Amino acid sequence: MSLSMYTATVTSYRSMLKNLSAVIAKAEAHCEAKKIDPAAFLASRLYPDMLPFTSQVQIATDNAKGAAARLAGVEIPKFEDNEKSFPELQARLDKTIAFLDTLTEAQFEGAAGRDIVLQLRDRKMEFKGDVYLTQWANPNVYFHITTAYALLRHGGVEIGKKDYLSGGASQGK
Amino acid sequence: MSLSMYTATVTSYRSMLKNLSAVIAKAEAHCEAKKIDPAAFLASRLYPDMLPFTSQVQIATDNAKGAAARLAGVEIPKFEDNEKSFPELQARLDKTIAFLDTLTEAQFEGAAGRDIVLQLRDRKMEFKGDVYLTQWANPNVYFHITTAYALLRHGGVEIGKKDYLSGGASQGK
Repeated sequence: MSLSMYTATVTSYRSMLKNLSAVIAKAEAHCEAKKIDPAAFLASRLYPDMLPFTSQVQIATDNAKGAAARLAGVEIPKFEDNEKSFPELQARLDKTIAFLDTLTEAQFEGAAGRDIVLQLRDRKMEFKGDVYLTQWANPNVYFHITTAYALLRHGGVEIGKKDYLSGGASQGK
Repeated sequence: MSLSMYTATVTSYRSMLKNLSAVIAKAEAHCEAKKIDPAAFLASRLYPDMLPFTSQVQIATDNAKGAAARLAGVEIPKFEDNEKSFPELQARLDKTIAFLDTLTEAQFEGAAGRDIVLQLRDRKMEFKGDVYLTQWANPNVYFHITTAYALLRHGGVEIGKKDYLSGGASQGK
């Protein structure tokens, strides 16, 4: 028995996006309670030439829906990158999770051996599905979710590792 | 064709630990060039009650060796948590990678269905191997590697996403 590509992709990413959603809900509540303008968090960066919080969430969802769609062999849903608030970012997470929910285990049959071509700005990358998932998609998805979490944590939102690991998924959210 | 548990665990973590090693090498060079005491980075945190850089690296390796050993059904190598410098953290990464190198694909046969019991400080968790890997080990390993990266990036080390994704592994390091 090996690991199903569906479990490794859809199930994993769904949990992590739900957790991120719960973490963002805590940030919203924090802003409300402390009278903080959410824009301060949305534009926050760990270093001036790093992407801000909003982009981290956008890119996390892009990687999740991109990987799931490519591995399932379906078209990648396109989202405009126009979110300007926590609720709009929550809606983007919801849309991504709803897309993941449309995918079936059957679509991931053979996904580990599928040829994946990724057109980046400066180069084209080619992988087999399993290498794409484990060496590209996973490191990217977790990177951007962790960085979004880190920005909120750095800014004083009271969140902990447990929120990141199971804050949303464990609540059946 | 599904995803091999060996690829999903050993191959993934080995790459990421090599990348982290390359990122730390850049931090060492940065300290040398700018006459910065490395201790400033080693003790750095994103928030006062978050664990410092050194712990992030220790926990990243703990999760990597713990997951690989449990899934392979071998004893987890024990490391003392006594690293006090970048070279000592590099040695810990090297030891972890050397341990991963001892594991074979055959040891991961059936790992997806293996019963994994995790004794945490406050509770016991039980998983099947595939759920343990995708819902616990992966989120943890990537979290601590990304947080270590974030601390260096936040502190001004000139590293980018490419270093995190392939800084060490792509150089055959």
